[in-house]
Amino acid sequence: MKISELCQVSGVPLPSIKYYLREGLLPPGERLASNQAAYTEQHVERLKLIRALIEVGGLPIATAQRVIAAVDDKELPLSYVFGVAQYAISDSSLYTEVDADSPGLERVDALIAELGWAVHPESPARHAAARVLDTLAGLGQGGPAQFLAEYAAAAERIARADLATVGLSTEVADMAETVVVGTVLGDALNAALRRMAQEHVSYQVYPAPRSQS
Amino acid sequence: MKISELCQVSGVPLPSIKYYLREGLLPPGERLASNQAAYTEQHVERLKLIRALIEVGGLPIATAQRVIAAVDDKELPLSYVFGVAQYAISDSSLYTEVDADSPGLERVDALIAELGWAVHPESPARHAAARVLDTLAGLGQGGPAQFLAEYAAAAERIARADLATVGLSTEVADMAETVVVGTVLGDALNAALRRMAQEHVSYQVYPAPRSQS
Repeated sequence: MKISELCQVSGVPLPSIKYYLREGLLPPGERLASNQAAYTEQHVERLKLIRALIEVGGLPIATAQRVIAAVDDKELPLSYVFGVAQYAISDSSLYTEVDADSPGLERVDALIAELGWAVHPESPARHAAARVLDTLAGLGQGGPAQFLAEYAAAAERIARADLATVGLSTEVADMAETVVVGTVLGDALNAALRRMAQEHVSYQVYPAPRSQS
Repeated sequence: MKISELCQVSGVPLPSIKYYLREGLLPPGERLASNQAAYTEQHVERLKLIRALIEVGGLPIATAQRVIAAVDDKELPLSYVFGVAQYAISDSSLYTEVDADSPGLERVDALIAELGWAVHPESPARHAAARVLDTLAGLGQGGPAQFLAEYAAAAERIARADLATVGLSTEVADMAETVVVGTVLGDALNAALRRMAQEHVSYQVYPAPRSQS
């Protein structure tokens, strides 16, 4: 199909498609003439993925680029799919290393040991969790000891559901996309569910007639 | 203290402090002369909050502005604190309404009914969750029926831990800040814990020697 049809079929505006082509997120179509190229159903699918990561997942373009490169890497061993998705997504300042003497890092490592989790010492998530805890402590909101353990138990439950979902894909290439999409959109879904659950629980804990507003 | 001292004490660069003053995130100091103002410990605390929301929580400036305005609103009834934090933070395109016939919305509403959650129909999170589910379905990754229920159970556990933490604040003003900080930084912490748990669970499910890389 022509680029104008790709635009119609996908519902993505033409300037956006041209931008994704320039930035390498969308592979070029098959060149037919000097200013005409043919696009396929695969381009439609790829546009869906790009829009999902950027519009719904909230990823910056540069991050989406790296995530898509990871999805396209057919050499990816199965056991590293999660790791690659994790590193590709972890590019914000939150995921840079904290100091070795960070109290948050000590707390995270104690949690990992207590739960018996297998987490690589260079995991960006380990540093990100430590940075959040240090920031909370700096705001005088270290929270009760219990809350981190509750969060971790919930995270393990979510991760088991994630892995069960990935296990339904049979091809490694599909798995990579499932993991990346699941990681990015799953964060958004978990955040939304947390807000709904907070609303529900807060009305249980602090009952108040809505008409008071 | 002078603005130069505020800069030293807080560790925030002077151009950033001036920017936050211009944008109204940081209240002005007490004016001493035409180009001199006095700042207090409260300004140091506010700078910590601003940096936490923007640098660690990843909020855009405009969203941080609205969140801080919510924290400063002393009229806020206790039972609406979570709601205000939620609405103030929910400004991305993810949190706009989906169509009434969205299959994702049907799935979310069925979940809410099943769990007996009290969630206002206009909750932005309800629409955000529906949008994520519709996007996943569009990518052919609707996931097994079970995964949404597992996510929701985890969300309720997290929300109970959140409410228990808020309950430790005695002042409503503190509560508002606790809720806002806990919502924004809690999302980042939950995402980081989820990645660590995924790494742990994926090595259990797909064991592979690390030296294969």
